[in-house]
Amino acid sequence: MGSKVTPHKVILDESEMPTSWYNIQADLPEPVDPPLSPMTKEPAGPEDFIPLFPMELIKQEMSQERYIEIPDEVQHVYKLFRPTPLQRAYRLEKELDTPAKIFYKNESVSPAGSHKPNTAIPQAYYNKMEGVKRICTETGAGQWGSALSLGCKFFGIELEVYMVKVSFEQKPYRRAMMEVWGAKVHASPTDETESGRAVLAEDPNCPGSLGIAISEAVEMALKRDDTKYSLGSVLNHVCMHQTIVGLEAKAQLEKVDEYPDVVIGCVGGGSNFAGISFPFAKDKFDGKDIRIIAVEPLSCPTLTQGKYEYDCGDEAGLAPIVMMYTLGHKFVPSPIHAGGLRYHGASPLVSKLVHDGYMEAVAYPQTQVFEAAMTFARTEGLIIAPETSHAVKCAIDEALKCKESGESKTILFNLSGHGLLDLRGYDEYLAGNLVD
Amino acid sequence: MGSKVTPHKVILDESEMPTSWYNIQADLPEPVDPPLSPMTKEPAGPEDFIPLFPMELIKQEMSQERYIEIPDEVQHVYKLFRPTPLQRAYRLEKELDTPAKIFYKNESVSPAGSHKPNTAIPQAYYNKMEGVKRICTETGAGQWGSALSLGCKFFGIELEVYMVKVSFEQKPYRRAMMEVWGAKVHASPTDETESGRAVLAEDPNCPGSLGIAISEAVEMALKRDDTKYSLGSVLNHVCMHQTIVGLEAKAQLEKVDEYPDVVIGCVGGGSNFAGISFPFAKDKFDGKDIRIIAVEPLSCPTLTQGKYEYDCGDEAGLAPIVMMYTLGHKFVPSPIHAGGLRYHGASPLVSKLVHDGYMEAVAYPQTQVFEAAMTFARTEGLIIAPETSHAVKCAIDEALKCKESGESKTILFNLSGHGLLDLRGYDEYLAGNLVD
Repeated sequence: MGSKVTPHKVILDESEMPTSWYNIQADLPEPVDPPLSPMTKEPAGPEDFIPLFPMELIKQEMSQERYIEIPDEVQHVYKLFRPTPLQRAYRLEKELDTPAKIFYKNESVSPAGSHKPNTAIPQAYYNKMEGVKRICTETGAGQWGSALSLGCKFFGIELEVYMVKVSFEQKPYRRAMMEVWGAKVHASPTDETESGRAVLAEDPNCPGSLGIAISEAVEMALKRDDTKYSLGSVLNHVCMHQTIVGLEAKAQLEKVDEYPDVVIGCVGGGSNFAGISFPFAKDKFDGKDIRIIAVEPLSCPTLTQGKYEYDCGDEAGLAPIVMMYTLGHKFVPSPIHAGGLRYHGASPLVSKLVHDGYMEAVAYPQTQVFEAAMTFARTEGLIIAPETSHAVKCAIDEALKCKESGESKTILFNLSGHGLLDLRGYDEYLAGNLVD
Repeated sequence: MGSKVTPHKVILDESEMPTSWYNIQADLPEPVDPPLSPMTKEPAGPEDFIPLFPMELIKQEMSQERYIEIPDEVQHVYKLFRPTPLQRAYRLEKELDTPAKIFYKNESVSPAGSHKPNTAIPQAYYNKMEGVKRICTETGAGQWGSALSLGCKFFGIELEVYMVKVSFEQKPYRRAMMEVWGAKVHASPTDETESGRAVLAEDPNCPGSLGIAISEAVEMALKRDDTKYSLGSVLNHVCMHQTIVGLEAKAQLEKVDEYPDVVIGCVGGGSNFAGISFPFAKDKFDGKDIRIIAVEPLSCPTLTQGKYEYDCGDEAGLAPIVMMYTLGHKFVPSPIHAGGLRYHGASPLVSKLVHDGYMEAVAYPQTQVFEAAMTFARTEGLIIAPETSHAVKCAIDEALKCKESGESKTILFNLSGHGLLDLRGYDEYLAGNLVD
């Protein structure tokens, strides 16, 4: 493998951009357990999702088709930043003195700075096609809220974002970013929803959580006929939209005669990890020898320490109940900088594949994660998101194992986002104030 | 022209990256007036620059060679982010309903987020080659300081940055970015230099200025044998390093059978503008019909309202004296958000070409500039730097002229940097608090 000299960046032409997403449900060795209605606790049918999502996304959520075509309008918007580069981390390899080859798929080049627009754009598009006027969503640190703001602006849909209050106050520039793209941003919990008022009645100073914000967004979507809800991770259709990441990476590696021995992504809800890994998991089902590693924070160890069981996706229990690894829907993770990984559950598809042994999971404390991010910034130059830094920490560990064993493995990780709006975390790390 | 369908992004392969910079001094219809020594006020020779710069950069500053080869080590680092994409602004064109074709060269994809690494990397390299241990520099809003931090980290040189105090306090994350890349950052004026102490004696609460920060950095470089100084704009060699931007853009336009009718860049010291425009100015000297427009803030109107005369580059008069458009080296521009454009002078090369009629200059107030930036963010998606927004405002105006005249002109501008660390300006604009 890899007899050619690999360029620093492996580029796909726009004409080589994948025109379909990959739906792993078509190839699962065993199907996932069905979601349950939050009302009846019985298996949910399409009708249970109709108040929340446009029909096309509901169909995708349940589809068994292997490939689903990306609409032309979505492809057109994707091409503002896709195909994204696949980069060879030559300078990091040299620093580690490893025989491993490290590749990263650079999703930080999107206007919102992460992989999130890959699903925000089609979600906005399908809502628009079905006449939806307004979308409600939640956001933690703001990555998802800003990506959906961008998508909604492009397709002329109003967006209301319920942003976890502590982030709303600490990250005014994430809020500004959403407003630049036309969204209305609320600090959650608000007194505008029943879920919010219930929380505030117990604790008027509640700093908010992702679970509470989801409850508020779902409640507001359910209340209005012209309004739907949108989720930035966890669900099957979201994971599927992200597979363009892995499909491109696979085509790019083929261009330089490479195939990964190890594929790595960080996991919050699971969508960036699904995106990079599902097209390779397909090969693993067919017997390919490949390791796929999900990386999570030690302070929110869903896959490594959670239970595999049915649980609610949100705090108030309004969203569908799914079979997944979970720390319990009342779990409140500690306020680590990787806000996007602070979720009590995980994608049912990712959970199933970890549970059934097709994928592994590891967890790291945040000081080690920031140390890896510093190494990356000082070799490859890029200042990456705290979430992404989890994947980098794992890639470095795998590369160092290769140094010990002398193996020249090919390691691929998803550089899911930049950290230019997360420099406070770096500042605390440099000042020695970061704790695990 | 332009019979092919242009893709959204015109990509060059790494093998197509230019391997030389273009030195416009070889082609100037008339040579520029020589710099003067700040000590003797006589024309400066190489010996006057030796305390400040490594010999190779002094040679480049005075060179009459048309092309100067980019060292392999510099090319290697460039390839972390170069060649950068040339993008067709389809969505902006549609919004403006213009027959014009708008292209932008996207320099925001560098790790530091701007064009500045194009010169920071070779400057660090040449210093390293000549045994320099430490570099001192100044930075206003932080773009240059962060780019040079990156360059120095890659080549193992210590960096001390004198950052204008008001920015140091207002932009802690720019400081953090420099520290991530290993630089030591001082709030200027400091009490560590004579220039700084002199300023503080008059005004202990002085918020600093670029002119003062330059004086401090130059003074500290002059004091120590193992230390040199580095400037991020204005000088001939800096402008030359930036020509990789225009050389790539030209090759990219050729790929889609296009040639610009108008080339646009914002001007602070002049280097990003020189970078995009000098390779096209060469054609203009040969008789090509092309307009080249420098865009500056109305509150710091160097090219449109300054005098063309010899003036100091810094406040204390330690740096060489050059022939340029200037507002006077004691001029203190108002605190607009485009901190990178708040400089009293401009590149002697750019000044000469504007003075001699080869280039035009226009000035805009910052509210109009932010309005243009909002239009860009809401169509093309990218949140751009306030400096860059000046170029966008001009590109929009030129495109709207085409709408009136019905002409399908090809407009090229330099998207010199993103605005992800400048969201405070957008926030003020959205809140209606921005003033001119």
